[in-house]
Amino acid sequence: MGEKYQALRQRLETVHNLNMAGGVLNWDRETAMPPKGDGARARQLATLARLSHEIFTSQETARLIEDARSEINGAAYESNEASLIRVAQRDYDQLTRLPTEFVAELTRITALAHNVWAEARATSNFVTFQPMLEQIMDLMVEGASCLGYKEHPYDALLNQYDEGMTTSLVRTIFEAHRPALVDLIAAVRAAPQVDDSFLHQDFDIEKQRQFGLKMTEAFGYDYQRGIQEVSVHPFCTHFSSNDVRITTRFDPKFIGSALFGFFHETGHAMYEQGIAQDLDDNILAGGTSLSVHESQSRMWENIVGRSKEYWSWALPQLQEYFPQLKGIGLDEFHRAINTVRNSFIRVEADEATYNLHIILRFEIEQELVAGKLAPKDVRDAWNSRFEQFFGMTPPNDAQGVLQDVHWSAGLVGYFPTYALGNLLSVQYYNQALKAHPNIPNEFAQGKFDTLLGWLNTNIHQYGRKYTTEELTQRVTGETIQSNAYMTYLKDKYTEVYGL
Amino acid sequence: MGEKYQALRQRLETVHNLNMAGGVLNWDRETAMPPKGDGARARQLATLARLSHEIFTSQETARLIEDARSEINGAAYESNEASLIRVAQRDYDQLTRLPTEFVAELTRITALAHNVWAEARATSNFVTFQPMLEQIMDLMVEGASCLGYKEHPYDALLNQYDEGMTTSLVRTIFEAHRPALVDLIAAVRAAPQVDDSFLHQDFDIEKQRQFGLKMTEAFGYDYQRGIQEVSVHPFCTHFSSNDVRITTRFDPKFIGSALFGFFHETGHAMYEQGIAQDLDDNILAGGTSLSVHESQSRMWENIVGRSKEYWSWALPQLQEYFPQLKGIGLDEFHRAINTVRNSFIRVEADEATYNLHIILRFEIEQELVAGKLAPKDVRDAWNSRFEQFFGMTPPNDAQGVLQDVHWSAGLVGYFPTYALGNLLSVQYYNQALKAHPNIPNEFAQGKFDTLLGWLNTNIHQYGRKYTTEELTQRVTGETIQSNAYMTYLKDKYTEVYGL
Repeated sequence: MGEKYQALRQRLETVHNLNMAGGVLNWDRETAMPPKGDGARARQLATLARLSHEIFTSQETARLIEDARSEINGAAYESNEASLIRVAQRDYDQLTRLPTEFVAELTRITALAHNVWAEARATSNFVTFQPMLEQIMDLMVEGASCLGYKEHPYDALLNQYDEGMTTSLVRTIFEAHRPALVDLIAAVRAAPQVDDSFLHQDFDIEKQRQFGLKMTEAFGYDYQRGIQEVSVHPFCTHFSSNDVRITTRFDPKFIGSALFGFFHETGHAMYEQGIAQDLDDNILAGGTSLSVHESQSRMWENIVGRSKEYWSWALPQLQEYFPQLKGIGLDEFHRAINTVRNSFIRVEADEATYNLHIILRFEIEQELVAGKLAPKDVRDAWNSRFEQFFGMTPPNDAQGVLQDVHWSAGLVGYFPTYALGNLLSVQYYNQALKAHPNIPNEFAQGKFDTLLGWLNTNIHQYGRKYTTEELTQRVTGETIQSNAYMTYLKDKYTEVYGL
Repeated sequence: MGEKYQALRQRLETVHNLNMAGGVLNWDRETAMPPKGDGARARQLATLARLSHEIFTSQETARLIEDARSEINGAAYESNEASLIRVAQRDYDQLTRLPTEFVAELTRITALAHNVWAEARATSNFVTFQPMLEQIMDLMVEGASCLGYKEHPYDALLNQYDEGMTTSLVRTIFEAHRPALVDLIAAVRAAPQVDDSFLHQDFDIEKQRQFGLKMTEAFGYDYQRGIQEVSVHPFCTHFSSNDVRITTRFDPKFIGSALFGFFHETGHAMYEQGIAQDLDDNILAGGTSLSVHESQSRMWENIVGRSKEYWSWALPQLQEYFPQLKGIGLDEFHRAINTVRNSFIRVEADEATYNLHIILRFEIEQELVAGKLAPKDVRDAWNSRFEQFFGMTPPNDAQGVLQDVHWSAGLVGYFPTYALGNLLSVQYYNQALKAHPNIPNEFAQGKFDTLLGWLNTNIHQYGRKYTTEELTQRVTGETIQSNAYMTYLKDKYTEVYGL
C-alpha cells in the first residue's frame, strides 16, 4: 500500500476513534452515569462529534481520497483499499451536506432529550417530551433538506440507515405483505388460542441473566470480547470487533422479555464480532446497514431462538434453572413462545404483528417530516392509528408513543429497517439452509457453529464493504422481498395454531 | 467578558472535553471493558490524547492566551478570568515541552501496561510486568528531560502533580518527621497491643456496600451527581462536578478495606463536587494539586472516619448491618480501627506507618529516574528496603512491588503527594476547628455539613485557581509542615495505646 493511501487511512482512523470514543460515552450514559451528569456529557459528546465532523469533512480529506484513489487505481472492487475509498467517498458526500454546527446541535439536543424521554416514559407523560420532539423534528427536517432527496424528504433520512432505500420502495415492500399479514393474523385469531401463561410467573432475575449468558455463549457470542449490562432499552454497541456489548431489560414476572432480548442483541453482537480483524481500526468496521444488522438479530432471536429444534436442546436446561417449568413439554413450550397476540410494545411483539408496529411508525414519521402532522398531535395520531391497526388503544403513553428510544436520539427513518431485517433474515437463512441442510438438526445438539460460520463467511466479514442491495444480491441472487418471510410465517403458524 | 477571552475559553473547553472523554474511556476500561477490548481502547485513548495535546499546544492557543491577557488586563488575581489565563499559561508551558508523539506513545503504552500489570499482580509475578516498567521508565526519563529541571530529573515529575514541589523540599519534609514517626511506632509496639480481630470475620459484601453508601451520603457525597463501582484498585474520577465517581475493593473477610476506602474516595469526590459550578466546563475544574486532593481524602478517611465522635453515632448503625459486632464497645472499636501494625499493603496501612510506605517509593522512584536503579532490580530493591523499614519481607510480588497501579499508568512522582496530603489534612482541619470548635461534637450527631461547608468555602470552590502553596498560605497562614500531623498522631496513639 502506498503512502497516499496510508495518509488517508490515518486520517480516517482518527475519525473512527473519535466516533468510537463517542460510543463509549453513550454506553456509559445508558449504563452508569448519574442523573445530573447529563449536561457535561452532552457537551463532551458535542465536542467529539464536532471534531469528528470537522476532520472528516475538511477539504484535506477530499484531497486525500482523490490522491489515494489515483494511487490504488485498478484495485478490485472488493479489496480493502478500493472499499475504504468508496465508503469514505460515500460518507463524505453525505456528511459534507450537514454543517458542522448542525451536527453539534443535534448531538447536544439528543443527549439532553434522552433523559427527558426516560423521565417522560417513567411518568408516562408525553407532554413533557413534546418540546424535545419538536426541536428534534425541526432538526430532522433541516437535516433532510441539507442531505437532499428526489421525491420525499423522508428518503434522505432512510438513506442514512440504508444506502439507496427510498420511501416508495419501502411502501411497495410493506404493501406487498401487509394484506397477507392481516389475513394471517385473522386466521390465527380464529383458531384455538395458545396457553402461554407459564411464561408469566416469577423468574429470578439473576437466574434469567445466567441462563441468557449461557445460551448466547453457546450461540457463539465471545464474552472475552464483549459484556452484557442492564439498561432501560436493550441495545448492542461496539467500540471494536473485540469490544462488542449488549444490554438487557429484565422483567421478574415474564421470562420472554430478557430471553429473546438476549438472543436478539447477540445476533447484532456476533455480526460485529465477525467483522474481519483487518477492518477493525477504521471506517469499514461496522455492519453493512441497519437492515442487514437487523436480519442477524432477528435470525438468532426468531429463526433459531424460537425453533423447536433449538428448544429440544435448551428446554431441559431452562427447566434446571427454573424448576417451575418442569412438566412443560416441548410442543407446549414451542407454541407458547410463538404465541400471536396484539400487544402495545413493539420490542415484545411476535413475528406476525411486528411489521404492523413498524408500518405505524413509518406512516407517522413520513407525515411528521412532510409537515402533515405536528409533534403535539403525535400522541393522538399514534393512539388512533393503533386502534385502527390492532383494535385497541394504548392505556398510557409509556405503552404507546413513548415506548421507543429512537426519536429522542434523532433516529428518524430507522424503524423501517426493522421490518426489512425481518424479511432479509429469512432470505439469508434459506441460503444457509441450501448450503447446509443439516443446520436445524445441529441446533438440537446445541451446535451453532455451522450457521455462524456461514454467516461469518457470507455476511459478517465484509463489514461496510457492500450496500444492502449488493450484499443481498451476492448472498441470495435476488433483491429484498417479502415472499420468503410470509412462507416462513405461514409454515410456523400452521404448525403452532393448526391452521 | 470580551470576545478574545471568549475565544480562549472555547478553545480550552474543547481541550477540557477531550480530556474528560478520555477519563470516561479510562473509567470504562477499569469497570466494564472486556479483556480483549484493550487494543482498540489504547488506540482510542491515544487519539483523544493526541488531539487534546495538538489543539492545546498549538501556536493558536498561545496567541489566544496573549490576546485574552491584554483584553482582561487589570482583572483581580483570583477572578475566573485571570485564573483561567494564568493556569492555561502554566499548562501550556508544561505541555509544549512534551512532543505530541511522546504523549500519544505514553498513552498507548500505559493503556497496554494496565492489563499487563493487572495480570502480573493476579499471578504475583513481577517478571511479566518488568518489560512494561522498562518502557515506562524510559518514557519518564525522556519526559523529565523534555520538561526540564534545576537539580534532579525527579523534580520535573513531581512538579506535574504538585506545582513547585521539588525533590529536596520533599526530602526535607520527610526527614523532619521520619525519626519522630519511627519513635512513635516503637513506643506503640512497646505498649500492650490492641485486639482488632473482630474486624476480620465474614462481612457480606452487599451489606458492606449498603453501609458505605449510607455513611458517605451522610458525609455529603451527592449520589445524584456520582456513582460507586467496583475495581481492582480503588480510585475517584470526575467528568464534571456533577459526575464524580468512586470505586471500591471489597474484602469479604475484613470490613476495614472497603469501609475506609469508601471514606477516602468520598473525600476526593466531595472536593470535586464542591468546585464552583461556573468553573465546571473548563480547565479550572479539578483540584488544586494531588497533595491538596489527598488532604481531603485523608481528612474524611482518618480525621473524621477514625474519630471516636463519629463512631459514637455510626457504630450502633454498623451493628444493625452486622449483628456479629453487637457487644463491641465504642472504645474497643475505636482502638481496633486505629491499630498500628506493620503491613505490606500501602492502601491498608495505618496512619503511623503510612508515610514510611511513601518514603520507600520516593527513594526507589528517585533512583530509577536518576538511572541508579534498573527496572529489573526493582523487586529486590523493594524487598530489601521493606525489610529495612518494617523488619519484614513481602511474601510475594502482589503484596510487594506490584501492589500499586501507579507505575503501570506512568504516574511516577505521584506517591509523595500522598504523604504531603496527610500533613495538609491536619493543617487544614485545625483551621476548620478554630473557626468551628463544635465540629467533632457534630460528628457525634451525624452532622457533617459544618465541616463540609467550611471545606467548600475555603478550599473546594476554587478548583485549580491556586497552587498548593498559595492555598495553604491562604487557609493556614503557613507552608506545608509536619508538626501538626505529628501532634495529631501522638495525641491519638497516646489515647489508643495509653502511651
